[in-house]
Amino acid sequence: MKKALSFDIGGTKIYSTIIDETGNVISEVDKFSTPKTIDGIKQILKEQIAKHESEIDAIAIATAGAVNNANTAVIGSTGNLVQGYSSIDFQSLSSKKVFLENDANAAAWAEYKIGASRGSDISIMLTLGTGVGGGIIINDKLLKGKSGAAGEMHFKMYSDKRRKCSCGSWDCFEIYASGTALKIDAEEELNDKNVTTYDVIKGVENRNEIMTKILNRWQDDIIIGIKGLANIFDPDCVVLSGSMAKFVNIKKVEDEVNSDIVTTPTSIRLATAGNYAGMIGAALLALS
Amino acid sequence: MKKALSFDIGGTKIYSTIIDETGNVISEVDKFSTPKTIDGIKQILKEQIAKHESEIDAIAIATAGAVNNANTAVIGSTGNLVQGYSSIDFQSLSSKKVFLENDANAAAWAEYKIGASRGSDISIMLTLGTGVGGGIIINDKLLKGKSGAAGEMHFKMYSDKRRKCSCGSWDCFEIYASGTALKIDAEEELNDKNVTTYDVIKGVENRNEIMTKILNRWQDDIIIGIKGLANIFDPDCVVLSGSMAKFVNIKKVEDEVNSDIVTTPTSIRLATAGNYAGMIGAALLALS
Repeated sequence: MKKALSFDIGGTKIYSTIIDETGNVISEVDKFSTPKTIDGIKQILKEQIAKHESEIDAIAIATAGAVNNANTAVIGSTGNLVQGYSSIDFQSLSSKKVFLENDANAAAWAEYKIGASRGSDISIMLTLGTGVGGGIIINDKLLKGKSGAAGEMHFKMYSDKRRKCSCGSWDCFEIYASGTALKIDAEEELNDKNVTTYDVIKGVENRNEIMTKILNRWQDDIIIGIKGLANIFDPDCVVLSGSMAKFVNIKKVEDEVNSDIVTTPTSIRLATAGNYAGMIGAALLALS
Repeated sequence: MKKALSFDIGGTKIYSTIIDETGNVISEVDKFSTPKTIDGIKQILKEQIAKHESEIDAIAIATAGAVNNANTAVIGSTGNLVQGYSSIDFQSLSSKKVFLENDANAAAWAEYKIGASRGSDISIMLTLGTGVGGGIIINDKLLKGKSGAAGEMHFKMYSDKRRKCSCGSWDCFEIYASGTALKIDAEEELNDKNVTTYDVIKGVENRNEIMTKILNRWQDDIIIGIKGLANIFDPDCVVLSGSMAKFVNIKKVEDEVNSDIVTTPTSIRLATAGNYAGMIGAALLALS
């Protein structure tokens, strides 16, 4: 059976593992703090590749940032990774092709192949974490756009400039639907800069009324964003993944979305491909 | 050369003409007021089909409302057409297949084949008329979604319920970017229910400051919507069509959109396929 050495490069951690063509993780998962230098990142990749190159058929990287349509390089800046990250010549790291895909796209592909959106002709995955990632699959293909940057969930929730988004613009879905957004919701409601998302989640567990109101406001914004996407794409399903997804009331989101769209009802689902979905998706794409 | 009898069925008028496989309109265009009954609509279609059936290779209909993925029937309700319109059995009108496509989708296809988005791998067309229509083409295919209803421009511009949209929901792009929206903008600014879009346009032509401010506000909302679509789709171009498109400052929209998106720059263009784009696109699809 074919297998890939697969990496997940994020702002905080780099993961590395071996994945077979059915999406099984067949080695231990190595974990590194993401170095603050380009050379440091390259060093980790080089060492892992040298260690495993003889036993694998492909090298895959799920990475923060947009990836070009040839899946060979990162394009543009990537916010929480070291400056100049996109200038890394990934192809120089191995004699094999190094296959790259955006981490949200790769995770969406894993959900499509082995997870929650399996068998869906058209699906949208939203990764709710510190930010919001998006991956859209239409007729067995990732929506990449002209440059590879499609699937960015930076459509606006308001048109009158309320919250600055990490992208530099105003009022993007990301700054209302992410973990960061939940913290801002709580700060605004409680007038307290020190409140955390953890405080909100704990409060909700303890049936605290204000914390529940804050979480519901955050969830309402997620619902509003999904309504728009459902009308634009008419998807079979919308999959929610990422560290914040488990705090969403999936059934309620599905009911509210479907009560207020002009397209036919869509299915809202929790991701099932697990924490390594990005590496799995990248590996499956690299091996296919 | 193959040709199609092609119809455009809208809330006010039904058009009928013959179009060849290169997209040329090769007969006079017949025009009828849209009957208020299903039988009336069927009667017009039947008469036209009987008149032309022997000389054509296909029958095409660009219609208001969503069309199923088999392109055989209208699904769901269609707002400004007679109730029960979607129950019409279009296939019973001829022994030939009657090919249907949503009018905005059909017009987008005409722009892609012979108009402003020709050669674009990924393009979005927005029809700015009484409402807003949308047609999205990705890798030589119309984006139809699971049921055929994709491309609905009912994503939200605000999340706090300001304007009711014709779809029954609140604050959709349509109710900020359509001709109807421009009238509402003017009503709000002037506190006058009787002001028309014509008054605004005339005022702008006469360099009236308030009318110019109203038009700019409308255009700013169009810009905000396009920014979101550009981040989601990373399109080669966004084509503006419909009766209101000519009042948009294309260059300004392009500059402002591209100054505030996370994807690579997109091209904003005026539609060039003309008033019969819907019939042309439907004919080209039916003949292909």
